[in-house]
Amino acid sequence: MTVLVVGSVALDSVETPFGRADDVIGGSATFFSAAASHLTKVQLVGVVGDDYPLDRLDALASRGVDLAGLERADGESFRWRGRYRHDLNSAETLETRLGVFSHFRPKIPEAFRRAPFVFLANIDPRLQLEVLRQVDRPKLVACDTMNFWIESRRSDLLTLLEQVDLVTLNDAEARQLTESANLVKAARWILDRGPTHVIIKKGEHGAFMFTRDSVFFAPAYPLEDVFDPTGAGDSFAGGFIGYLARTGDVSEASMRRAVIFGSAMGSFAVERFSIGRLTEIGMDDITNRVRAFHRLVSFEAELPP
Amino acid sequence: MTVLVVGSVALDSVETPFGRADDVIGGSATFFSAAASHLTKVQLVGVVGDDYPLDRLDALASRGVDLAGLERADGESFRWRGRYRHDLNSAETLETRLGVFSHFRPKIPEAFRRAPFVFLANIDPRLQLEVLRQVDRPKLVACDTMNFWIESRRSDLLTLLEQVDLVTLNDAEARQLTESANLVKAARWILDRGPTHVIIKKGEHGAFMFTRDSVFFAPAYPLEDVFDPTGAGDSFAGGFIGYLARTGDVSEASMRRAVIFGSAMGSFAVERFSIGRLTEIGMDDITNRVRAFHRLVSFEAELPP
Repeated sequence: MTVLVVGSVALDSVETPFGRADDVIGGSATFFSAAASHLTKVQLVGVVGDDYPLDRLDALASRGVDLAGLERADGESFRWRGRYRHDLNSAETLETRLGVFSHFRPKIPEAFRRAPFVFLANIDPRLQLEVLRQVDRPKLVACDTMNFWIESRRSDLLTLLEQVDLVTLNDAEARQLTESANLVKAARWILDRGPTHVIIKKGEHGAFMFTRDSVFFAPAYPLEDVFDPTGAGDSFAGGFIGYLARTGDVSEASMRRAVIFGSAMGSFAVERFSIGRLTEIGMDDITNRVRAFHRLVSFEAELPP
Repeated sequence: MTVLVVGSVALDSVETPFGRADDVIGGSATFFSAAASHLTKVQLVGVVGDDYPLDRLDALASRGVDLAGLERADGESFRWRGRYRHDLNSAETLETRLGVFSHFRPKIPEAFRRAPFVFLANIDPRLQLEVLRQVDRPKLVACDTMNFWIESRRSDLLTLLEQVDLVTLNDAEARQLTESANLVKAARWILDRGPTHVIIKKGEHGAFMFTRDSVFFAPAYPLEDVFDPTGAGDSFAGGFIGYLARTGDVSEASMRRAVIFGSAMGSFAVERFSIGRLTEIGMDDITNRVRAFHRLVSFEAELPP
């Protein structure tokens, strides 16, 4: 089954303790697609400026990402410049230039409107709602968001929550949105507003998936070298939704495996700048890492007599 | 099998967002014993002043904690006063009065010297080494430490590492000791100095157990109400070593279950002030929580065809 993703396609300039990269391809829809395309067909909707090196998206196109919904507008592409210090868990934004992204109005091509899985990456909740008006009863809609929209578009975001099945957000955002320091309470607050599933991402500390009746936790994979954390969250979402779309199965057992596929993709994303590692790995790498996650948390619950 | 613990027996005064408690029983050996005594016999070595309300330790004695090694010295008991704000992961120490603890020289009673499991709680590494000179080839020795000793007693601590099987420390302490920001590298650095197992505790973010060949991760249990985090780490150690001593089994599978028993005990400890919750629970509560941990992380690793 196909996944539709609507989000940013950007140029990132990143400094980490291990090096720097200038104007490499980035953006939420890009990372999401690079991860999800290992598992299923992806349809991407976004916008770039007339300065965008489109040939660098060939790596996505050749993996089956349909770029027919990638609009090219006059002006500058969305650029983000950031830095990570030794605490790789938080980025310091040095510069954000929205460029053509500031006038983005997502237009979902006719051929994309029946995608059974939809991921609304982190964009203005008003635009996320516009996307939902253009699609035809998807099987599962997930959305992401960020502090900026929680602050400036709170009521639109609450309307959006009524219309999605699943929300991904990080721990700080969950606390900000719900005004609860406790993540269990924060998750319940969100579940009360519509979604059946809430995924709270804690970066290097893993991710929780909450439903009304259950909690699932996946650690982040303990890597020796985290090279560049940019895009880990969107790669997680790509692995997660990609797995669900591949199997078409949204049972609890499948959702749990999907979280692990998401965590695996997040762990690959941080091993190189940009989508470098995500476009290099194959299915064997992915299943090996999923098994490594299994070894990481496995224990027998029963006491010996 | 019996566990010997050497550590502090203190009076804590704690403020949290949910209330305050004054001069309640605390200390590393106290929390450790309250947790471990659910699983096995415990022998405690420590010191209190002539002002200590010894009757409040009846809750431990009645659970089979042998207090014959608890020395009563002239002077004031060890007192700690601290505060937790909404971020319950870090305590703010308002006052520490070592009292009789500042002259503590652990004397291991003859009857305690053959305990097969030994936990050297967080005290001066020179005293931890003195304890090791008094015991008779235990099956497993574990130690804890803290930032103060890493800073002031580094060479003694390195000597200690050569003589223990297992170290527990928190993530900040692991980074400080090894001068490595990455926990995988930090763990390897420690393993290179002697221990076969390193447990790195991350508070609300769970705990890693590293060996040369494996990594195991246990999340912290997602509680709705973390009432008072004091003693969680020592309760973890009590559950962990207590489980090993109960089974006498130090295989990898057993060590993994032990980490979960430790995590369960840590999760109970934070539900009340002092050892309130730990002395209230029974074996059913413990096994139920261990099963809840299993549900929290369980997933099937194999892809459907």
